[in-house]
Amino acid sequence: MTETFHVSGFTGSCCSRLCFHQSAVCKVASQAERGFKPAKVAVVTKTTRYEFEQQRYRYAGLSEEDLKQLLALKGSSYNGLLERHNIHTINVGQIVDSLQKEGIEVRIVKRGEYDEDTVRWADAIISAGGDGTMLLVASKVYDKNKPVLGVNTDPERSEGHLCLPVHYTHAFSEALQKLRKGEFRWQWRQRIRMNLEGTGINPTPVDLHELQLSLEQHNKAHRITTDTQSSMTHNSPERPHLLPVRGLNEIFIGESLSSRLKYKSFKPHLTLSLHRASYYEISIDDGPWEKQKSSGLSICTGTGSKAWSYNINKLVEQAVEDVLRIGKLKTGLDVPLNREFIASVTETYNESLIFSPEEDKLFFSIREPIVNRVFSNSRQRGFAKKVCVRSRCWDACMVVDGGTSFEFNDGAIATITLNEEDLLRTVILD
Amino acid sequence: MTETFHVSGFTGSCCSRLCFHQSAVCKVASQAERGFKPAKVAVVTKTTRYEFEQQRYRYAGLSEEDLKQLLALKGSSYNGLLERHNIHTINVGQIVDSLQKEGIEVRIVKRGEYDEDTVRWADAIISAGGDGTMLLVASKVYDKNKPVLGVNTDPERSEGHLCLPVHYTHAFSEALQKLRKGEFRWQWRQRIRMNLEGTGINPTPVDLHELQLSLEQHNKAHRITTDTQSSMTHNSPERPHLLPVRGLNEIFIGESLSSRLKYKSFKPHLTLSLHRASYYEISIDDGPWEKQKSSGLSICTGTGSKAWSYNINKLVEQAVEDVLRIGKLKTGLDVPLNREFIASVTETYNESLIFSPEEDKLFFSIREPIVNRVFSNSRQRGFAKKVCVRSRCWDACMVVDGGTSFEFNDGAIATITLNEEDLLRTVILD
Repeated sequence: MTETFHVSGFTGSCCSRLCFHQSAVCKVASQAERGFKPAKVAVVTKTTRYEFEQQRYRYAGLSEEDLKQLLALKGSSYNGLLERHNIHTINVGQIVDSLQKEGIEVRIVKRGEYDEDTVRWADAIISAGGDGTMLLVASKVYDKNKPVLGVNTDPERSEGHLCLPVHYTHAFSEALQKLRKGEFRWQWRQRIRMNLEGTGINPTPVDLHELQLSLEQHNKAHRITTDTQSSMTHNSPERPHLLPVRGLNEIFIGESLSSRLKYKSFKPHLTLSLHRASYYEISIDDGPWEKQKSSGLSICTGTGSKAWSYNINKLVEQAVEDVLRIGKLKTGLDVPLNREFIASVTETYNESLIFSPEEDKLFFSIREPIVNRVFSNSRQRGFAKKVCVRSRCWDACMVVDGGTSFEFNDGAIATITLNEEDLLRTVILD
Repeated sequence: MTETFHVSGFTGSCCSRLCFHQSAVCKVASQAERGFKPAKVAVVTKTTRYEFEQQRYRYAGLSEEDLKQLLALKGSSYNGLLERHNIHTINVGQIVDSLQKEGIEVRIVKRGEYDEDTVRWADAIISAGGDGTMLLVASKVYDKNKPVLGVNTDPERSEGHLCLPVHYTHAFSEALQKLRKGEFRWQWRQRIRMNLEGTGINPTPVDLHELQLSLEQHNKAHRITTDTQSSMTHNSPERPHLLPVRGLNEIFIGESLSSRLKYKSFKPHLTLSLHRASYYEISIDDGPWEKQKSSGLSICTGTGSKAWSYNINKLVEQAVEDVLRIGKLKTGLDVPLNREFIASVTETYNESLIFSPEEDKLFFSIREPIVNRVFSNSRQRGFAKKVCVRSRCWDACMVVDGGTSFEFNDGAIATITLNEEDLLRTVILD
C-alpha cells in the first residue's frame, strides 16, 4: 500500500500506512478525521423467522391460513412472528431513509444475495439484523479500510454485541450525523488467519451462510481433495494454504457431521453423534506438541471473547459457590458464602475472560477436556500469539464464526495467527 | 411378571419380582445366587480403526500397499493400527475360547450385524470393545433380566468405564469362573425413559449405530411425520409416544445437523454451525417452565455421570485456582494456593458430580448457558426425578447415548424419567 491509496468511506487518510503499527492504528482511530462520508452504502438485511416459516410452508404448499394454524399448533404465534418481522422492516426503512436524506446511494441486499460484487461496489456496508448478520457481512470484507457497521434491528430479541448501541436502532439518523461529523472513533477489530497444510486437506470453503447452498454443492466442495489418490500426490505436506476467510469471533475445531456426506459409503459404520470426542495435537506459541481429547477446541479474538468462547469458559454462581464452600471446609477459614460475595467472585472471574477486540492476541480453550489413563491435559486455556493444531480426527471440521466450514481430518495441520492485514474496520459510537 | 418367570442367564431366581423394589434389588444383587450360567452367549465385537481404514480405502480402490503409504503420509502407522487390531482380535479369541470350554454355545457378532434376533437368541451378551460397543449392545436389550457384560479389548487405547476391570481382559476365563461360582454381584443400572408429545414429532428412531445406515434411510426416517399436513392432523398434542430406546449414559438435546437433510429445500438459508444456540423451555420435577438458551441440555443417569456429563460439568485446576485466588483477594483471608490444595479442592468438586448407576435419580445440566438481556438462567444443573423440555429449536435432535437420534423441533415436548422396568442388568466383579 502507498500514501496515495484511496481509503473507502472517507478521503485522504494516511491511515492505511499507519495501520501497520497497532499503536498508530489506535492513535489514528481515536480521531476519525474528516468523518465517515461514504458515497455508496450497502444495507444487508437478515432473514426474519417470519420469512423463514413463510418460505418453509409455502414450499410445502400451505396457504397463509394454514401457516397460522400450524404455528398456533406449535405454540408459536403467527402474529408474534409478524410483529417481530415488521419491527425489523421498519428499522431497516429508517436506516435507508436516513442514508438517502444525506444523498448517499443505497443498495438494500438480502442476506442471501450478499456477495463480493456488493462489497466492491460499496464504500461502506451496514448490517441490518443481529450479530449473525454482522458476522456474515464481515466475512466477505477483506479491505481493512472499508468500514462495516452493524445495526441491531430487533433489540428485544437479539443481543447485538457487534452492533451499534441499541439506542441508535430507533435513531439511526442521529448516529449518521455523529459519524459524518467525526464524533466517533474507528475500531480495527483483529481477525484470525488460518493456514492449512498436510494431507487430505481441502482449502475450499463451504459457505454455510450461502443461501443457495445445496447438499450437493456442500458435498462437492468437500470432495475436491478427498479422492485418496489426489491427496497422496497433490497434497504434499510442503504446501500450506492460506484459507480464504478470516475469523472475527472464533474458529472451532471438532468432530462434526458437516463433512459426513462425502463418506457415506466410506464410513457407514461411524456413529453420528453430537459429542464424538475430537482427537488432535496442539502446540502453543511453537511450544511442544501435546495430545488432546476433548469436545473440540475454540480459538477466539477479543471480539469473540464475549461470544461463544465466553460461554464455554464462564462459570455460573452455582459452581463458584461450590468451589468456595469446599475451600472453606478444607481450610476452616471464614470464607463468606452470601449471594453478594458469590456474585462478585463470579463476575470477576468471568470478566477476566474478556479482552479488547483490538488486542493482537488469541485466546484458546479446550472444550470439555477428557482426562484419563490414555489422555492427559495440562493447560485448558490461555492467551497465545500462535496456535498450531494437528488433526487426529476422522470426520472433523474447522468452522469459522459458525459460518464457514473446512474439512480438518487426520493428517491436516492448521496454523492459527493474527495479522495486521486482516483487521476489520468498524466504528465506536458512545 | 410372576414367580414362574424364567430369568435368562441363571435359573429359578425370584429376583424379577423383587426388582420392583430398588432396596430389594440391591439385597438380591449382593448375592448372585446360583451364579451366572448362560447356555447361549452372543459376543458382539467392535470395528477396529484398521478395519475402518481398510474398508474405506478398499472402497476407493486402493491396495494394501497404497493404504500403508497413505497412512504414513497422514502420520498414522499402518503397523500401529494393525497391532491394535490384532490385540483386539486376540482378546476376542480368548473370550470365545473360555466360553466354549465351559460348554457354552457362542455366537460372534460384528457390531454392525448385531440385532434383536441376536438378543432374543442369547441368554447373555458380551460386548467386546470399548464403552461405545457396550452402549450399542445395551441399547437393544429391553429384558432387565438378560445380563450384559463388557470386556475392554484394548485397555491401552480405551477407558472402558462400562466394562469389567481391565485385569480380566487378559484373564477372561478367571472372570468366567467367578461368574459361574457366583463370586460377583448383579448390578441393575438405571436407564432413561423418554415420552415425546406435541406437534411435528417423529417417534421413529434413527439408529446411528446402524452399520447399514445410509443418508437416504436417515432422511426417510426423519421425514415420516415431517410432512406438515400430517403433523397438523395426526400429531394431536394429546398423544404422547414412549420412545423405543432407553438411555444408559445420557440424552442430549440440542441443535444439530442430523435432521438437516429433510429440510434442504425448506430452510436453505439456515447456517450450518457446530454451536447454533438451542432455545427451549424446561421444567424440573413439575416445577414452573423456564426459558433457556444454551449449547444444549444433558440429562444423565449415575452411569452417565462419569461420561459426557462429567466432562461438561467438571472443573479443571486452572479454574479452581482462579476462583480461590479471587476469593482470597476479595477477603484477604489466607487461602492456600499450592498445587496439593488446588488439586484436592478440584477433586472434591469433580467427585460431587458422580453418583451410583443404581440410584434412581437424574442429573440435568445446561451446557454453556447463555445469559443476557433476553434470556435468564437460574439453575444450571441439579438432580431430578423428572425433567420436561419443550423445544423451541428449528432443527434439533434428542440424541440417546450418542447413538440414536430423534427430531426435537419447535412444538415437541419431551418427558424424561426413570422406570424400574428399564433397568439394565450387569455384573460387578472385584
